[in-house]
Amino acid sequence: MVTYEQVHDPSFSIRERMEALVRQKQKEITTALAAVDTVGFHTDTWERGNGGGGGQSMVLQNGTTFEKGGVNISIVHGKLPAAAVSRMKADHRNLKAAADDGSVNFFACGLSLVIHPINPHAPTTHANYRYFETTDPETNEVQAWWFGGGADLTPSYLYEEDAKHFHQVHKDTLDKYDKELYPKYKKWCDEYFFIKHRGETRGIGGVFFDDFDSKPADEILHIVESSFDAFVEAYVPIVKKRKDLPYTPEQKNWQQIRRGRYVEFNLVLDRGTQFGLQTPGSRVESILMSLPATASWAYDHHPEEGSEEEKLLKVLQSPIEWV
Amino acid sequence: MVTYEQVHDPSFSIRERMEALVRQKQKEITTALAAVDTVGFHTDTWERGNGGGGGQSMVLQNGTTFEKGGVNISIVHGKLPAAAVSRMKADHRNLKAAADDGSVNFFACGLSLVIHPINPHAPTTHANYRYFETTDPETNEVQAWWFGGGADLTPSYLYEEDAKHFHQVHKDTLDKYDKELYPKYKKWCDEYFFIKHRGETRGIGGVFFDDFDSKPADEILHIVESSFDAFVEAYVPIVKKRKDLPYTPEQKNWQQIRRGRYVEFNLVLDRGTQFGLQTPGSRVESILMSLPATASWAYDHHPEEGSEEEKLLKVLQSPIEWV
Repeated sequence: MVTYEQVHDPSFSIRERMEALVRQKQKEITTALAAVDTVGFHTDTWERGNGGGGGQSMVLQNGTTFEKGGVNISIVHGKLPAAAVSRMKADHRNLKAAADDGSVNFFACGLSLVIHPINPHAPTTHANYRYFETTDPETNEVQAWWFGGGADLTPSYLYEEDAKHFHQVHKDTLDKYDKELYPKYKKWCDEYFFIKHRGETRGIGGVFFDDFDSKPADEILHIVESSFDAFVEAYVPIVKKRKDLPYTPEQKNWQQIRRGRYVEFNLVLDRGTQFGLQTPGSRVESILMSLPATASWAYDHHPEEGSEEEKLLKVLQSPIEWV
Repeated sequence: MVTYEQVHDPSFSIRERMEALVRQKQKEITTALAAVDTVGFHTDTWERGNGGGGGQSMVLQNGTTFEKGGVNISIVHGKLPAAAVSRMKADHRNLKAAADDGSVNFFACGLSLVIHPINPHAPTTHANYRYFETTDPETNEVQAWWFGGGADLTPSYLYEEDAKHFHQVHKDTLDKYDKELYPKYKKWCDEYFFIKHRGETRGIGGVFFDDFDSKPADEILHIVESSFDAFVEAYVPIVKKRKDLPYTPEQKNWQQIRRGRYVEFNLVLDRGTQFGLQTPGSRVESILMSLPATASWAYDHHPEEGSEEEKLLKVLQSPIEWV
């Protein structure tokens, strides 16, 4: 039985404390989101098979505020085959320890969410915090470990005050721990969520980091806990403010085109999605939960000069320092 | 000036004859498709820059029969850098000749089309025939060459007579040249358009081939010409028959979900799309013309047992010999 108290109890291992954290935050985040909708979340628990752990997907579809939203946790472990290890090494310099056959004993635990509101004035958002470790197959001692994660905002219409609020809350949270984190993670976010073939970012950014092991694990766990709370504080007030604004069919259409770009990023470029789809035994529905309920592609679409749509596009083409 | 007559004139090179062929077939195919709609095609010509050729995209959007359809030709040439050569070599055993710096002088010419009708009873279709050659940088002599291509059908509702008709026309056409072609290319099609992470094919197949150089180029050019004609004969009567059938909002919704799978295949798995998006200077709008105007993703969607939707899914999960 995993209880919330163990998050802060150093007699538990970091992996146990992270599991307790994501289980608690899934409850809190879905409660906070459901409070701005009249439809609730549907819960699926799933197992990876062969005693390799599993997860719990919570999905809200066809709500009155949210068209589709998913908050997924997974706590998995097992052996990464040599091929997967060498694929991961490209992104994770920390991944060094391996058994004689090139495989790695791993544990991974995280929470990942994507929320697509109905109203084109209310932005889509994504957040994801995760912990990864490898252990010695003989002694079970932790060999390499790191945290990764971030949160970002994808509006169809730019409200500068929303962008500033989202960034400010995340900056304030990270600044409490280390003032060097926000500037670094803000830049990393702009770089990661760049849709190369379109020459634009997916949204107006936020924070993103990976391979974080440069502080004690206990301290990073606290940073991650605060970041989960920052996400709710950053996002929910924006949705409340925008969810009932009037909008035109043309604005809805623009939102659909932006969602098409969201799909392009997630399916063509997102390393997490690609890794998941290539991993045998992974749960495809939980991976592709991130895709919007509806999306659209118009051939060679260009917003009118001076329009609100063009204003957004310009910001996506050259990211801004919001705070 | 490229004229249709040169398709059959052996005093022209194969690349010149293929260019004449795709230019002519773009006209014929768009004319045949426009005849079953009340909206016409919009034409864009584009250049690759640095004298590397270009193409012509013809797109029909928001028609009365077709939601979105594109028929694109491209005639491009230049230098493939060593990195692109080694990526291509994995798929094309024929690609052997290279300059000292590992680069390759290439010429590529093809026609590619994707048509998405409005009516969920009318199937989406894709066809693509192309010629590729590499030349000696000193003498301009052709070193390696091959043809590739195919045509396939993606219904949301299965009409067995349509599937049989589509396959029969292509089989009859190929049988005239060589009875071994259809069975081989039918199987290749089922294998290529398999959405691994879903465990289902994109549609009910058709024909697909690549690296075709085992007959004289002149003969393959004739096969390709006949295949273009087969496509029109195979597809247009199906659309005519289905485009005005009544349908329910639930059927439209199922079509949208199937289109989501279409997007998944094209963005995650299609090698042509990936190669195009990774190639600097390629025209993204022409590559992503294949995406539907609208698509949808529902979390963990399963059709009802015994329904028409389930009937289609079963065929996609284990392909059928239609003729």
